[in-house]
Formats: sequence, C-alpha cells, structure tokens
Amino acid sequence: MALLLDNQFKDLPPDKAIDTKLFLEAVSHIPQFFDCLGSNVFSVIKSDINGNITKIRAVYMTDPAKYVTLQDIVEAEREAHAAEWPKVGATLALMWLKRGLRFIQILLQSLADGEREENNPNLIRVNITRAYEQALKRYHGWIVQKIFHVALHAAPYKSNFLKALSKGEEVKEEDCLANVRQFLVNYTATVDAIYEMYTNLKAELDYTV
Amino acid sequence: MALLLDNQFKDLPPDKAIDTKLFLEAVSHIPQFFDCLGSNVFSVIKSDINGNITKIRAVYMTDPAKYVTLQDIVEAEREAHAAEWPKVGATLALMWLKRGLRFIQILLQSLADGEREENNPNLIRVNITRAYEQALKRYHGWIVQKIFHVALHAAPYKSNFLKALSKGEEVKEEDCLANVRQFLVNYTATVDAIYEMYTNLKAELDYTV
Ligand SMILES: CCCCCCCCCCCCC/C=C/[C@@H](O)[C@H](CO[C@@H]1O[C@H](CO)[C@H](O)[C@H](OS(=O)(=O)O)[C@H]1O)NC(=O)CCCCCCCCCCC
Ligand SMILES: CCCCCCCCCCCCC/C=C/[C@@H](O)[C@H](CO[C@@H]1O[C@H](CO)[C@H](O)[C@H](OS(=O)(=O)O)[C@H]1O)NC(=O)CCCCCCCCCCC
Repeated sequence: MALLLDNQFKDLPPDKAIDTKLFLEAVSHIPQFFDCLGSNVFSVIKSDINGNITKIRAVYMTDPAKYVTLQDIVEAEREAHAAEWPKVGATLALMWLKRGLRFIQILLQSLADGEREENNPNLIRVNITRAYEQALKRYHGWIVQKIFHVALHAAPYKSNFLKALSKGEEVKEEDCLANVRQFLVNYTATVDAIYEMYTNLKAELDYTV
Repeated sequence: MALLLDNQFKDLPPDKAIDTKLFLEAVSHIPQFFDCLGSNVFSVIKSDINGNITKIRAVYMTDPAKYVTLQDIVEAEREAHAAEWPKVGATLALMWLKRGLRFIQILLQSLADGEREENNPNLIRVNITRAYEQALKRYHGWIVQKIFHVALHAAPYKSNFLKALSKGEEVKEEDCLANVRQFLVNYTATVDAIYEMYTNLKAELDYTV
C-alpha cells in the first residue's frame, strides 16, 4: 500500500480551497495506479490522465503566485476565454481528471466496503463496473462504453491488484483495505471539493466522447 | 488531398538509406491523418504514434551529426544497450511507428485499388480491416483485437474520409485517389526500406500487446 499511502492527499482547509501545488504533487502519483491494473491496455488511460495533469501544471507554472488554488485557475480562464470556457485549458483538463479520480475513489471504496461477486470473490469486475457507471459512463458514447466492456476482461484478480497496490509486497487483504480506507479520507474530500467547485462555477459539461 | 500531398516523402537514394531529418519532417504530419477518421476514439492512436515520433526525434536531437540516417540510430542503440536491444529507445519507437505507417499505406492502397464491399460501397471497413490484418493484428492480443473490432464502428464513410484527406474540399473521388496513388510512391518505398532494415539488422520483435 506504500504506493498510495506514501502520497496521501492533504487535509482541506475549512473553506475547502485546494492548494494547486500540493494537489499537483499528490496527484502526480495517480497515473501509476493504472499500472496496478496489470495490462498495458490501461496505459492508454494512464496517458490520458497524465495529459490532464501536464496541462494543469503548465498553466500553474505560468504564474504560481496567481494560481495558488485550483479555483484561481478556473476563474482566471473563465475571464480569459469567455467564448470557449469551460471547454478549454486547465478547466477542461481538471473536468476530466476529476472523473478519473472519482473512478479510482469509487473503485477503492467499493473494495473497502467488501462489495463482491459471491461466486467469484477474487474478481474485481463488479467493483470496476460500479466505479465506471458512477463516474464515467454517462460521458462516453456507445462505442467507448463497448470498449470499456471489452477492456474489463483485462482486469486483474483482486489478490494481484491488492498486491500491486502494496508495491508488490504480500500483505493481508484486511491490512491493505485498512490502508485504503485511511487513504480515502482526504482523497475523497478533495475529489468532492473539486466537484462542488465545478457545480458552483457552472463549469461542468456533459458532452460525450 | 493537400494534407498528404503537401507533405510528400522524399525519393530514396539508391542505397535506400533514410535521412533522419527529412523522415522526421515528413512523418510529423502523419498523426493528423487520424483526425481524418473523424472520431475522437482515434485520438488514442494519434497520441501513440505521436509518442513514437517524439521519442525518435529526441534521440536524433542529442547528436544530429551522428544520426544522419535512421540506420545510424538503430545501430548506435544496438551498441549502447546490448542487453535490452531491440526493445529499447528509438529502435522500439520506430518498430511500432513503421507498423502504424504500414497500416496507413495498406488502407490507402486498398482504396486506390478500388477494393470495396459491393453492397456498401461507401463504407471503408473492408479496407481498414485489410490494413489491420496485414500490419497490426499479429502484434495484438485478443483483447486489443476485440477493441479494434468495436472501434471499427467509428470508421467514417468513404466520402467523408476522402473529403477529410482533401482538407475539407469537395473533390471528385477519382481526383482524390489519383493524388493518393501519387503520394503512395515514395511513402511505400520509405516504409518498405524501414522494414528491410529491421529484417537485416534482426531488430524485429513479435511480442503482442
Ligand atoms: C488498434 C486497435 C485500437 C483501436 C482504437 C481503440 C481506441 C480506444 C479508445 C478508448 C478510450 C480510452 C479512454 C480515453 C477517453 C478519453 O477520450 C476521455 C476524454 O478525454 C478528454 O477529452 C478532452 C476533449 O474532449 C480533452 O482532450 C482532455 O484532455 S485535456 O487535458 O487536453 O483537456 C481529455 O482528457 N477521457 C476519459 O474518459 C477519462 C478516462 C479516465 C479513466 C478511466 C478508467 C477506466 C478503467 C477501465 C477499466 C476496465
Ligand atoms: C474507459 C474505457 C476504456 C478502457 C480502456 C481502453 C483501452 C484501449 C486500448 C486500445 C489500444 C490502442 C492502440 C495502442 C496500442 C499500443 O499499445 C501499441 C503498442 O504501443 C507501443 O508499445 C511499446 C511498448 O511495448 C512502446 O511503448 C511504444 O512506444 S515508444 O515510442 O515509447 O517506444 C508504443 O508505441 N501500438 C500499436 O498497436 C500501434 C497502433 C497504430 C495504429 C493503429 C491504427 C488502427 C486503426 C483502427 C481503426 C478502426
């Protein structure tokens, strides 16, 4: 679990403003998560998410003092690109990134909650499918949805997945899941805060790809 | 057709050595080809190919005087990374890039040859499938092969595809295909020469992804 626990998300302040620098630091370890899925089919998703992070970081680096929080960036882009916004720049990248983060959150939560196929307790398809349906499906047209269902066959066994989360060390399932629960506290709060911000700023779009 | 014809590949010299700089220049316009397929499903492939080109260019830029031809790069890497070679660096990137280039070549050739489904003359699935089977299928495991079959449903109509190749201008199918034939002369010679080089240097691998 070192992989995740080494890179805890920070506590949010009371106003739930997300510090851009700390966020980029924490989130930069997320793409590796897709290596835990074990098949290079998922490298495609890894690079999509990597692209989102790179784009947000690039905007941040143009003026770190101006872009202290994620909301600073989104609001500045609303000013600067009124016509295209929110389908532009870091606003668009974060819109998609948060969906990938939500996918991971729900998948881990579902595992931590012990959700499983009674007949196939060592499969995680039911957990992945729940995460997909809640986080992403509505933003995907039927072709990508069908590709998801095919890709699901490349999902690892639960035991291998938990082992990969634990950086290849053999840990007891319960110990690993306790660590996941711990990780999820600040992680979920952060993802929730980004969703709230998108709702408040009317920055959310629902086109499909 | 401007898109392709504006960026003709060069004549090869008699020894079929490929000039790295000219190759990188010509090939840098290839990723746009996938925009002609019209669906953002293909943007995944576009970035894979873009990644190959970026990697080759990065190696070239470390010492342009040393890496005048593509073969110079592949041979230098064979020296430098004996243990991992050929699954390394620009050698690996060019190994995959040439397969994507071959895919495009066979697709265009099949259209130029008038291959079509008699009952659906405005579909290009039969042409795409031929290209896939000859260039890529054997390097893909069953999951990626299945994903290909799903993605095929996102293929454009022939009329739209030819229009996109012509940069959005309405041109007669025969005029467009005449331009394609013209483009294919040096393009095919270049792709063939890369394949020959990989055979001669025993640089080819046949693992699947
Ligand atoms: C040779 C044969 C192959 C044929 C072709 C095959 C093609 C396969 C294509 C499958 C789709 C792969 C997933 C990627 C989907 C992406 O299209 C979407 C939207 O992606 C966004 O698009 C925006 C513009 O609209 C910007 O470019 C964003 O970029 S920007 O930074 O520039 O603004 C970008 O992230 N991201 C997503 O849906 C996010 C996905 C997140 C994670 C999903 C986890 C799922 C895990 C599943 C486990 C079973
Ligand atoms: C949310 C739901 C989504 C769930 C997840 C969906 C996942 C979908 C994955 C589909 C696969 C997409 C195609 C990409 C395949 C790639 O995996 C392969 C190998 O790619 C190579 O791999 C090497 C290492 O082995 C190096 O990294 C190379 O990189 S390196 O530069 O670093 O050395 C890299 O190019 N390239 C390929 O097969 C090349 C493909 C070329 C063009 C194909 C044209 C097909 C057109 C089809 C028209 C119908």
